[in-house]
Amino acid sequence: MLFQYQDYRMNSHSLLLQLVIILVSARTLSEIASYIRIPAVIGEMAAGIIIGPSILGWIQLSDPIQFMAQMGIILLLFEVGIETDLGQLTSAGKNALSVALVGVILPFILGFWISYYYFSFSLIVSSFIASTLTATSIGITLRVFRDLKRENTAEAHVIIGAAVLDDIIGIILLAFLFDYATSGEVSWWNSGKLMLFIVIFFITAPIAAKFVSTVIRKWDQKSELPGLLPTTIVSFMLLFSWISHSLGAPELLGSFAAGLAVSRQFFLPLGTFLHRTPEFSERIEKQIRPIIHLFTPIFFVSVGLSLNFHNSYFFSTYIWKLAGLLLLVAILGKLLSGIFIKKISLIEKLIIGTSMVPRGEVGLIFANVGLTSGIFKDDLYAAMILVITITTIFTPISLSWLYRLKSHA
Amino acid sequence: MLFQYQDYRMNSHSLLLQLVIILVSARTLSEIASYIRIPAVIGEMAAGIIIGPSILGWIQLSDPIQFMAQMGIILLLFEVGIETDLGQLTSAGKNALSVALVGVILPFILGFWISYYYFSFSLIVSSFIASTLTATSIGITLRVFRDLKRENTAEAHVIIGAAVLDDIIGIILLAFLFDYATSGEVSWWNSGKLMLFIVIFFITAPIAAKFVSTVIRKWDQKSELPGLLPTTIVSFMLLFSWISHSLGAPELLGSFAAGLAVSRQFFLPLGTFLHRTPEFSERIEKQIRPIIHLFTPIFFVSVGLSLNFHNSYFFSTYIWKLAGLLLLVAILGKLLSGIFIKKISLIEKLIIGTSMVPRGEVGLIFANVGLTSGIFKDDLYAAMILVITITTIFTPISLSWLYRLKSHA
Repeated sequence: MLFQYQDYRMNSHSLLLQLVIILVSARTLSEIASYIRIPAVIGEMAAGIIIGPSILGWIQLSDPIQFMAQMGIILLLFEVGIETDLGQLTSAGKNALSVALVGVILPFILGFWISYYYFSFSLIVSSFIASTLTATSIGITLRVFRDLKRENTAEAHVIIGAAVLDDIIGIILLAFLFDYATSGEVSWWNSGKLMLFIVIFFITAPIAAKFVSTVIRKWDQKSELPGLLPTTIVSFMLLFSWISHSLGAPELLGSFAAGLAVSRQFFLPLGTFLHRTPEFSERIEKQIRPIIHLFTPIFFVSVGLSLNFHNSYFFSTYIWKLAGLLLLVAILGKLLSGIFIKKISLIEKLIIGTSMVPRGEVGLIFANVGLTSGIFKDDLYAAMILVITITTIFTPISLSWLYRLKSHA
Repeated sequence: MLFQYQDYRMNSHSLLLQLVIILVSARTLSEIASYIRIPAVIGEMAAGIIIGPSILGWIQLSDPIQFMAQMGIILLLFEVGIETDLGQLTSAGKNALSVALVGVILPFILGFWISYYYFSFSLIVSSFIASTLTATSIGITLRVFRDLKRENTAEAHVIIGAAVLDDIIGIILLAFLFDYATSGEVSWWNSGKLMLFIVIFFITAPIAAKFVSTVIRKWDQKSELPGLLPTTIVSFMLLFSWISHSLGAPELLGSFAAGLAVSRQFFLPLGTFLHRTPEFSERIEKQIRPIIHLFTPIFFVSVGLSLNFHNSYFFSTYIWKLAGLLLLVAILGKLLSGIFIKKISLIEKLIIGTSMVPRGEVGLIFANVGLTSGIFKDDLYAAMILVITITTIFTPISLSWLYRLKSHA
């Protein structure tokens, strides 16, 4: 115990500098990105690629940095939740569902088809490739929308909804395949249980979160000690992330629900309006925003840090062919996900489709489960990493380009 | 690399809950403490003792939590720096020096005397015990002053100065003894070099920090992206902590210097006033305060977490005798540290003396170097931990009691 304290102190020295390098490089490159009119988040990911194993090799992802990165994405989703109009989100529901479904089914079918018939992978390997291609990294897209100041548009609501649904479908797929890969059979019972948990969470979480946030608000009115909100609100979102994860649902769903509960437009699913507290929402936003600004860049840098371009497999033609075809499928499948939405222009459909393209950290998690469970061999894993990387970099650039096209149209 | 990401994700789950438990228990117990009119920091340390290995055993100190705790104390010292009036601090200089010197020399001599002559420890062991007793944990005392709203009193300035000097003397002592313990001889050269570095740092740091803060201020005026201050100011203080540590000086000195540089009353040592920027200092305080409020409780909880009352040695009469006598010396030596200050009442002298009593995390670091280098045997280590714990708990309670006495006098 106390030894550990000592050991830690001896090594902690370089962590301080690492965090400085992460924060300063992220800031510098995001300023440059914004100056040359590309989304700032690209700068932050580029910072991770530059200071990480791909180029300079200064920073290795260590537990403390990863934990702070994880808090960063949780905080970001909380902020998205605060700013989300639940009414608009529900009214976007049907469209979001169609985007999520098309964006899962198309990449899955196309990915499976190429893997199984063209590259002759086994059934399980092909399914795993196909599942990895269904992932969507909501974080990347949300940041791009924010960087472009489009986070309150109708498209944004559709995309948030679709990305949340995608995360849920992804988790179920992963649980399903992991079961099959390890036990050789599909457990309908496990998958069913998981789905049930998620549904229960979705129904009860906003109500529970509203209750907790009311307790915090009352406490805030009485407390004489400073600093109640930063600790309690951060605890609140971490707790809901933890509960969400414990039930098998994506972590981010929890902090999103927590954010919804303290948002200005919150109402209960059944239409019953609770006592609204706009000043409280504002106080929270003011106090939590600096914390969000501190943590979120760490997340996006960590995405860059987790990529490694040094890999010698990148010189193999087989891997490039594999990656190239899967990439095509990965982009095409998501790009078409907006086709069933009515009454919007082609550019808007493409904007929605493009937003669903980045696989980011969610894709990496899939790929790593594939690798650690022995389903992905090294060369296939390398190809998947390439696909995930390119989809992640592709989106911010294409999105800002599409928005410029739209404003000229 | 990417494996690590995966491994991390699998274990990260419980970290979220741990942080929630740390933050919520700290808040709850500090509110209770404040309600029954004892310093809130006692509540936070008690939270650590309760949820840590001593009682419930729910939380183990892990690297991510420790890193955040370390950031907590760095942030606290930065805030102290911001709020410190450099003019008053320099004018407190002579008094601070006398407090620091008495508070190092007395516990050292008394501690050595008891260890060497009464308990017959060897020369090196006795010196190490004596050195451990010279440490002062500035964090605990500063928090108590803040909790009691006394952080801008004359006593507070003397104590901050003395605690900073104490930290420096402590580090030099530690380097000295560690050299001796490992090589069997005293290296005047190493100790001299260390002292030189610290002096250079002390002279150049505030100037360099002023320069960096000016760069950040100019950047802040130009940047179009939100969130510049949280990342750059945190980087700024972490960088100075790192530099300070790299030069062999205490980490906290660096963030204290960084805080001084952005404070409203900053001027250069030679009396040349630089361009003052009170609005910038205010903006920083407003944006950094929520971050400070989030991180500092983690530090004080971690102090509680690093103590372990379960140890079976606590039932040994020898250890209690050893601990009892060392404790007497530890308290007495510091309590008298204010005796040479002129023109203040006895109660004020006792307040200053009491403030220097807690050994806190600084004492723990000394004790752990003693243990890991083999100088302290397990029983002696246990006694030292007891002494450190009791001095740390003693101070907040005595201080608030002394202040109440003073206001009645």
